[in-house]
Amino acid sequence: MAPQVKSIEWTDGKLSLLDQTQLPVDVTVEEQTSVEQVWDSIKKLKVRGAPAIGVAGAYGLVVAMRDKTTLDAGAFMDELQRNADYLDSSRPTAVNLSWALKRVVAAARESGAATGGALLDVVRETAEAIHQEDIELCRKIGEYGVPLIQDGMGVLTHCNAGRLATSEYGTATAPMYLAHQNGVRFSVYSDESRPLLQGSRLTAWELKEAGIDVYTITDNMAAFVMQQGLIDLVIVGTDRVAANGDVANKIGTMGVAILAKHFGIPFYVASPFSTIDLATPTGSDIVIEERGEDEVTHFGLRRTAPEGIKVRNPAFDVTPNELVTAIITDRGIIKAPYTENLKKVFG
Amino acid sequence: MAPQVKSIEWTDGKLSLLDQTQLPVDVTVEEQTSVEQVWDSIKKLKVRGAPAIGVAGAYGLVVAMRDKTTLDAGAFMDELQRNADYLDSSRPTAVNLSWALKRVVAAARESGAATGGALLDVVRETAEAIHQEDIELCRKIGEYGVPLIQDGMGVLTHCNAGRLATSEYGTATAPMYLAHQNGVRFSVYSDESRPLLQGSRLTAWELKEAGIDVYTITDNMAAFVMQQGLIDLVIVGTDRVAANGDVANKIGTMGVAILAKHFGIPFYVASPFSTIDLATPTGSDIVIEERGEDEVTHFGLRRTAPEGIKVRNPAFDVTPNELVTAIITDRGIIKAPYTENLKKVFG
Repeated sequence: MAPQVKSIEWTDGKLSLLDQTQLPVDVTVEEQTSVEQVWDSIKKLKVRGAPAIGVAGAYGLVVAMRDKTTLDAGAFMDELQRNADYLDSSRPTAVNLSWALKRVVAAARESGAATGGALLDVVRETAEAIHQEDIELCRKIGEYGVPLIQDGMGVLTHCNAGRLATSEYGTATAPMYLAHQNGVRFSVYSDESRPLLQGSRLTAWELKEAGIDVYTITDNMAAFVMQQGLIDLVIVGTDRVAANGDVANKIGTMGVAILAKHFGIPFYVASPFSTIDLATPTGSDIVIEERGEDEVTHFGLRRTAPEGIKVRNPAFDVTPNELVTAIITDRGIIKAPYTENLKKVFG
Repeated sequence: MAPQVKSIEWTDGKLSLLDQTQLPVDVTVEEQTSVEQVWDSIKKLKVRGAPAIGVAGAYGLVVAMRDKTTLDAGAFMDELQRNADYLDSSRPTAVNLSWALKRVVAAARESGAATGGALLDVVRETAEAIHQEDIELCRKIGEYGVPLIQDGMGVLTHCNAGRLATSEYGTATAPMYLAHQNGVRFSVYSDESRPLLQGSRLTAWELKEAGIDVYTITDNMAAFVMQQGLIDLVIVGTDRVAANGDVANKIGTMGVAILAKHFGIPFYVASPFSTIDLATPTGSDIVIEERGEDEVTHFGLRRTAPEGIKVRNPAFDVTPNELVTAIITDRGIIKAPYTENLKKVFG
C-alpha cells in the first residue's frame, strides 16, 4: 500500500520526474535525458517543493556528468562546477537546490578520487544520500505524528506539504500516509489554497492517488466543516519556524489556526529540522513576499477581477506560536514553551 | 458622486438591465424589449440578487402588457396573470420574484380599473413603487450604518450584498456608498468569495466604479489583513436572520466573523426587514443548500481538482449570534439580546 507515483524516480541510474504542472488532469512522468532538460523541469515547476528540487538538482549533476568519465579529475571537477552553477540558475532563490548542488560538488572535491569514473561514483552516491536522507526525514516526521490520527478522525490540511514537494511521504502528509499504511480509517479535508490551488491540484490528487479518503473544499469552507464537527485535528507544513515557534507558511494558514482555536481543535505544524531557523528570533522578523497581482485578479488565464483593481497578494502569513498546539519534527514532537524547547533540540 | 451604473434602469418607460454575467470584463446594458427577453435575463443571471430580481420581474410585467391596452379588463387580467406565471418560472426558488409578481397582479385586480389602459397604469405604478421602496430600504440601511465608517478606516466585506444585487446602494454596501458621498476617506477589502467569486467579479467592480478605494483579496487573506491592522470593521449582507440573531449568509461569512472576534474587530450584518425571519427560531433550523461539485472542482471551465475527488460545497453558513456585533436594518441598528430586540422591532 505504498504511495504509487513519486515526484522523483531514480531507477537503474535513470532519473524520471513527474510533471506536476499537468496535475491534476494528466499524470506524465518524463525521463530526464540531459542536464538541460533537468534545468527546464526545475525552471518550469514540473518539479517543485524545496526538498524535491534539491534532490532533483543533485541527480541532475549525475545526468550531466555520466558520459564524462573519460575526463581527467581536474577537467571533471571543472565541468561538474559549471553544471552546478548552471542548474543553480534555474531557481536562484531555492535554498535547498543551492545547498544540494554545493554538497555534491564538495563531496567530489573532498573525496580524493583521481579519475572521472571514480568522481562520478562520488557524485552519484552523494545524490542518492541526499535522496535517502529526505525520505528518512519525512518518514520520521510521519512516525512521530502517526499516533495523532485515530480511526474515524477528520484531518484538515492547507496547501501542499505533501509527497509531491519531497521525495516521499511529505511533511504534513507523512503522518497521514503512515496512518493509512497502518490501516487507520480517517478523512482528509484539503483546502483549495488560492491563489495557486496547490491544495486541490496537488494535495487532493496525491492523497486520493494513495487511496486516502479526501475531500476538496474552498478555503472559506474550513470554518463550516469545523463547525459541523468533521475536523479533529489540523496538520500543515511550514516554510520557516522562528526561534520562538512562530510559523511562516502559505497564506491562509494563520486563518485556519484561528478557526481551529475557536473550535477547540488542535493545530499541528510538521517541520523537518532544516526548516527550523533559530537565527530568526520571531515571526515579525520574517519578510512576507508579496507576489504579482495577476494571481489574484485571474484564475489561470481568465480575468476574474476588474481591470485596474488594487490587490494584496501576500504569499505567506505568520501564525503566532500561541496558536500552535505542537510542532511535529523528525526529532520528536515539540511543544510550548517553544523558545526553550526548540533550542534544547535544535540549538 | 452618485453611483454610475445601475443593475436596473427605468427611464421614459424603458427597462434596461446591466448584464452582470459579463462583469468584470465587459459593461453591457441591454434594453429589454420583450417579456421573453426579461425572462431570459433573469434565467441567465444577467440580473441577480433577490431584491433586484423582484424589481426586474415587476417591470417585466409592464414590458409584457404595454401594448395590450386595447384589451378589455377581463382579457387584460388573464394576460397579466399568464405573464406573471411565465416570469415566475424563470427562477422558481426566488422568493422576491414571486412576491413582486403577485403584488403587481393583486394591485391590478384590486384597483377596480375598468380598461386595459387604466390597468396598465396600475401595473406600472406598482412596479415603480416596488422599485422605489427597494431604493428607500437600502438608503435607510445606509443612513443607519454610515456613522460606523470614519476617515482612515478599512472595511472588509464578503460576497456581494451590493448595489448590483438591489436597485441602488445595496445592503452591506449602503453605508459605504453614503460614507463615500459624504466625503469620508476609507478603504474596502473585498473577499474574492469562492466558489463563484461574487466578491472579485461584482463587489470590487461596483465599488471601484463608484470611486471607492477597494482591494481584492482571496478569501484566505482576510486573517492577514486583519493581523496587519488594516481592518476596522466588517460589514456583510445576509440571506436570512433567525429570530435569535443567527445569520445565514454566503459560505465563508462565519469564518470571517470568527477572525474578526479574534482580532477584536466589530462584525456587522446589514439586513432589510424582509430578510429577518422571526418564524425561524435559530440558525440550526436553516437548511444549508449543498450545491454541485463542479463549482469547487472547476474554475470556470477549467478543472482544478482531480477527477472523481469528493467535494463539499455548502452555499451558505450560519454565523452564531454571539459573533454578531450588531445588525444594521432599515429600522435602526439592532444589538444583543437579539431574541428580545428583534421581536421588539420586527415582531
